[in-house]
Amino acid sequence: MSDRPTSLTERLTQQLAFVIEIDKLKGVLRQSLLADQSRRENSAEHSWHLALMVLVLAEYVAGPIDTTRALELALTHDLVEIDAGDTFVYDQEACQDQDVREQRAAARIFGLLPDDQQAGLWDQWRELEAGETPEAKLVRVLDRLQPLLLHDATAGVGWQRHGVRKSQVMKRVGDIERHAPALWPLVCRIVDEAVAGGQLMDD
Amino acid sequence: MSDRPTSLTERLTQQLAFVIEIDKLKGVLRQSLLADQSRRENSAEHSWHLALMVLVLAEYVAGPIDTTRALELALTHDLVEIDAGDTFVYDQEACQDQDVREQRAAARIFGLLPDDQQAGLWDQWRELEAGETPEAKLVRVLDRLQPLLLHDATAGVGWQRHGVRKSQVMKRVGDIERHAPALWPLVCRIVDEAVAGGQLMDD
Repeated sequence: MSDRPTSLTERLTQQLAFVIEIDKLKGVLRQSLLADQSRRENSAEHSWHLALMVLVLAEYVAGPIDTTRALELALTHDLVEIDAGDTFVYDQEACQDQDVREQRAAARIFGLLPDDQQAGLWDQWRELEAGETPEAKLVRVLDRLQPLLLHDATAGVGWQRHGVRKSQVMKRVGDIERHAPALWPLVCRIVDEAVAGGQLMDD
Repeated sequence: MSDRPTSLTERLTQQLAFVIEIDKLKGVLRQSLLADQSRRENSAEHSWHLALMVLVLAEYVAGPIDTTRALELALTHDLVEIDAGDTFVYDQEACQDQDVREQRAAARIFGLLPDDQQAGLWDQWRELEAGETPEAKLVRVLDRLQPLLLHDATAGVGWQRHGVRKSQVMKRVGDIERHAPALWPLVCRIVDEAVAGGQLMDD
């Protein structure tokens, strides 16, 4: 973008560089398949799905919920994957250096923006990592629930492919039990059916 | 989802049916290519990109902007494409019955939700169609700008493929000139370069 005319401000030039850079999140593949099993989901469309779930399912986490904040967390939480990649939660080795990789990615990607806007992204990212606010709890609950729903819709083929164990899933979804108890029977049904169907290994 | 246990409320069952149904938006392809030219963009990841642009570029449309509202409009505006498909804006024939197709789609897809939530989606959709509020103006501006940025990043191959004329693009981006004049020099540069490069037909 070095040839932009001088009529574009430095601020706008930075913002546009960020807007084009984040297009790469559409190429970061997750382990989940789409509900129609046609292909793996990417992290951009996953983030969109999470944001829609914020709009539809916010009532299941104790509030009050600041909707703008929850949407910001949902929309930006995976941006670091542009550099750090999607870390499969049941891959213990990859999870070990995940923090370092994501910190470095955040510095580069958020750093494309003007100072005030990159500060906002750092705040959002730290808030979600800490998981203390109602909005962070909501987004963490939905971020655990969304792949469960896709696993359910695709009869657990992703779990089966990776030999995932029930105990691993149950540890991962603890946030749902803690923060959205009304969604817990749904989680238990999905997991129990996947164990009964042989897609998830009991242990 | 007929076999859900009775512990799930009717309301939650409706909400989950909607959440899984909208997964289909990830399979609706647009004419734009991703910035890396690897494939066509889908409407779910496009909606995510728009929402991020709301967070980064809202300052270019006269406010005050209700961020939650603008994000809602960006995130839900293409849901009707699950049934109605993405209508290429320069395909005059397809545009003729677009309204009817989209109304029918809205009735079916929004209708999956509990009454209060489907009413919210109808409100959002009508607000964006009317284009009168600052939030609707912002999202319409960004919805015009986003494909322009991708065309720019991909050297206009999509325009070239469809034989699009400059006058068609200029008519389409009028919202940007009217509502976000600070972005207008950028639009002119992109269009002029595409004409000079032979990707967009002058007329």
